[in-house]
Amino acid sequence: MSKNLTSRADDYSKWYNELVVKADMAENSAVRGCMVIKPYGYAIWEKMQAELDRMFKETGHQNAYFPLFVPKSLFEAEEKNAEGFAKECAIVTHYRLQNDPDNPGKLRVDPEAKLEEELIVRPTSEAIIWSTYKGWIQSYRDLPILVNQWANVVRWEMRTRLFLRTTEFLWQEGHTAHATKQEAIAEAELMNDIYAEFAENFMAIPVIKGIKTESERFAGAIETYCIEALMQDGKALQAGTSHFLGQNFAKAFDVKFTNKEGQLEYVWATSWGVSTRLMGALIMTHSDDKGLVLPPNLAPSQVVIVPIYKNEEQLELITEKANGIIKGLKLKGISCKFDGRTTHRPGAKFAQHELQGVPLRVAIGPKDLENNTAELARRDNLTKQIIGFDDLERTVETLLTTIQEELFTKALNFRDSHMTKVDDFEEFKKVLDKKTGFISAHWDGTAETEQKIKDATKATIRCIPMDAKEELGTCVFSGKPSKQRVLFAKAY
Amino acid sequence: MSKNLTSRADDYSKWYNELVVKADMAENSAVRGCMVIKPYGYAIWEKMQAELDRMFKETGHQNAYFPLFVPKSLFEAEEKNAEGFAKECAIVTHYRLQNDPDNPGKLRVDPEAKLEEELIVRPTSEAIIWSTYKGWIQSYRDLPILVNQWANVVRWEMRTRLFLRTTEFLWQEGHTAHATKQEAIAEAELMNDIYAEFAENFMAIPVIKGIKTESERFAGAIETYCIEALMQDGKALQAGTSHFLGQNFAKAFDVKFTNKEGQLEYVWATSWGVSTRLMGALIMTHSDDKGLVLPPNLAPSQVVIVPIYKNEEQLELITEKANGIIKGLKLKGISCKFDGRTTHRPGAKFAQHELQGVPLRVAIGPKDLENNTAELARRDNLTKQIIGFDDLERTVETLLTTIQEELFTKALNFRDSHMTKVDDFEEFKKVLDKKTGFISAHWDGTAETEQKIKDATKATIRCIPMDAKEELGTCVFSGKPSKQRVLFAKAY
Repeated sequence: MSKNLTSRADDYSKWYNELVVKADMAENSAVRGCMVIKPYGYAIWEKMQAELDRMFKETGHQNAYFPLFVPKSLFEAEEKNAEGFAKECAIVTHYRLQNDPDNPGKLRVDPEAKLEEELIVRPTSEAIIWSTYKGWIQSYRDLPILVNQWANVVRWEMRTRLFLRTTEFLWQEGHTAHATKQEAIAEAELMNDIYAEFAENFMAIPVIKGIKTESERFAGAIETYCIEALMQDGKALQAGTSHFLGQNFAKAFDVKFTNKEGQLEYVWATSWGVSTRLMGALIMTHSDDKGLVLPPNLAPSQVVIVPIYKNEEQLELITEKANGIIKGLKLKGISCKFDGRTTHRPGAKFAQHELQGVPLRVAIGPKDLENNTAELARRDNLTKQIIGFDDLERTVETLLTTIQEELFTKALNFRDSHMTKVDDFEEFKKVLDKKTGFISAHWDGTAETEQKIKDATKATIRCIPMDAKEELGTCVFSGKPSKQRVLFAKAY
Repeated sequence: MSKNLTSRADDYSKWYNELVVKADMAENSAVRGCMVIKPYGYAIWEKMQAELDRMFKETGHQNAYFPLFVPKSLFEAEEKNAEGFAKECAIVTHYRLQNDPDNPGKLRVDPEAKLEEELIVRPTSEAIIWSTYKGWIQSYRDLPILVNQWANVVRWEMRTRLFLRTTEFLWQEGHTAHATKQEAIAEAELMNDIYAEFAENFMAIPVIKGIKTESERFAGAIETYCIEALMQDGKALQAGTSHFLGQNFAKAFDVKFTNKEGQLEYVWATSWGVSTRLMGALIMTHSDDKGLVLPPNLAPSQVVIVPIYKNEEQLELITEKANGIIKGLKLKGISCKFDGRTTHRPGAKFAQHELQGVPLRVAIGPKDLENNTAELARRDNLTKQIIGFDDLERTVETLLTTIQEELFTKALNFRDSHMTKVDDFEEFKKVLDKKTGFISAHWDGTAETEQKIKDATKATIRCIPMDAKEELGTCVFSGKPSKQRVLFAKAY
């Protein structure tokens, strides 16, 4: 089906791009910077969505849907709070195409059909949602509002990469409204915890929970919580953020409520989101030079059965056997696909399933039928074993749990071995040059130092870890006093 | 929570608009013609999505995601096939906002950031998808492609109504590619059958399966299959369409494949979709002057338990009892909510659940606890009964099935009694004046007659029913010969 991938050691970036396309996850489209998410990639995204959605609902959130467009004037209201807000966005100015009188067969924008007010394709929905919440909230009885939206958003990115940075991407954005500051902070922290739980238990990606420095914070936020993951090439990736927005948006859109004491107060807000960027994190945490490696919890098919046969009769017998196995696995909640395509040879099928990261492969040939056995192969560590049919279901079930755990442990070990305590700026630069991941170092707390370090090394402060202990020291750059270490890295 | 609704008899249209807003399903937004789908409405849509998605997957379809934007040039390619295609659409011409130098605090479109080629916000995705399929299809081995997309689309509508016609709406659009004409036709018919099955079994809406006349057909289609439903006010509503597209899009985007004989052929196509418009159909089929009536299969909560209490102690005892009931119902796959809000009185809760169409309401008071009973009320026919706790689960389970069936039967009876065979044009107009629904009449098969009837009565041919028997007659308008009756109605 496809030639070998570029190896990670040769060119990590090229390896990534090739893998995404060859494993049929996504591809570039006819629209600059926008991707097509192909069925195989989308099936993984759907698994992520289902799990996150379940977690959101279990914590009391409901889904809703808000308009794709944001009138320019709402942007301006928000802008007062968020001067740094990205302004690179798609802008709708007209609402009609017409046949071009000068070019038969061509269309042009009808110059008469100009909008009175331009519409921005949402880069995020705080503005449209808070202008809506104004109508929903009068009293403390209307609070909290715990709403999430699954949607597409558009940010006019100049340099794009499949999943990691695309002009249009898919995400969920939670937007909650609360009566008290404490409640809003608790919500922002809870959602960051949920993201961490999802990343670790489902994606098998160890993450560090932390808060962003002021310069890395979302422009409208008082505090930005985040989860940071480490990719195989030593670069960090922000996998999710949760913002405590204070009363900024309530003030921008004049959203007040009557509290229990009968007084008018501004509402407290949070917002939080993860996106199809997680697909990039998944790939760059587990995959290898042979292709995708998927944690069983997110694999569209956890097991694939490939028949090895020389004639129609053998295929029939194997198919029958496979159907029994699939049925048994289904009862255990395990998804298994039978690859009975007659258009491809077993070798090509093996290569494809390896490339697409199916966690377990079962191969059954005529001799296996005689011996009541099958060949069971793990995608993650490429080991194989011969197994009796009687033991197959139970072994598959156990192995899927094992693989899920081992992928996490492997990624955790990798991260731990790429976390360096540094107290000297020359050492800091050396560690970065060796692509050795996170640097834990003292920082004097100023944006100025942060910027200077970034200018000198391209490394940014990924977060101030939530579990960081107080530790007196001196800033790795300025030598000024510091109370705790923060995490630096180059980042996606 | 809200005053009485306008009655349907007084003003059906006003009743509808009030109901959608007061039952917390949707509301108008700050963006012209775009709606906000509120959590309660969205929960119903999610139930529809889940069921449809299951049906699509069971018939071999996979989901994918294609870009929101369509470059103007792709529209032009399609345009050659589809001259009649709607050109009222949102057009992105620029990609940056900037601070307005003349108006401090205001933003303006950066005139320098003009796109070389305008992007159309997708009104439907045939163009972007077929330009993508070109890269996916080389050989018969690559076929069929059975792909569906859940997405938002935008059509610049001048007159909008919540759910029924909005500038932005949510839908699914299936786009399939086949090696043969027969296979594509079978697919288009299958998907129309699936829509009919969904409408009848889940939405409890009886539908007529049919094909559209040439003038009502999707512009790029060879044949448009549809399901047509009848609303309470005697107007028809097209609830879903499935198109056999022939080789039109394959030719427009040059998508060919090598068949088994090694010859190059154009690919055969279908597309099919249903949208949030179904929410409107649901409301206008079952609801009454007291509010929404939901079929149990689509109700976010199928049962609600309302405690009647005078003190904290009573509330506790009732809550305990309710939790037991909820647990028992959950095991049967029945969703049940406990409305323990202390901020609302039972009367207000009753009114809200009635307005929001919760199929069954269980009220439990202190006396019920003594007697081991509860009051069980049906939303659809407003009947109540006292029921022993021991019988509650079983009765609820049976009633939910009964309600689902009875809603369908009621709607079917309504439709049957609003289906009139007419052989005379004066009679035709009289029936329409009385809002009596579908008219089954002979038609001479010409677009000219169809248009004249429309001009004279506003009625259109909703479809040529799939199960229509051949019956010789004369056209109700022109008197020319006809071979079968078709269905006319005024329509949404």
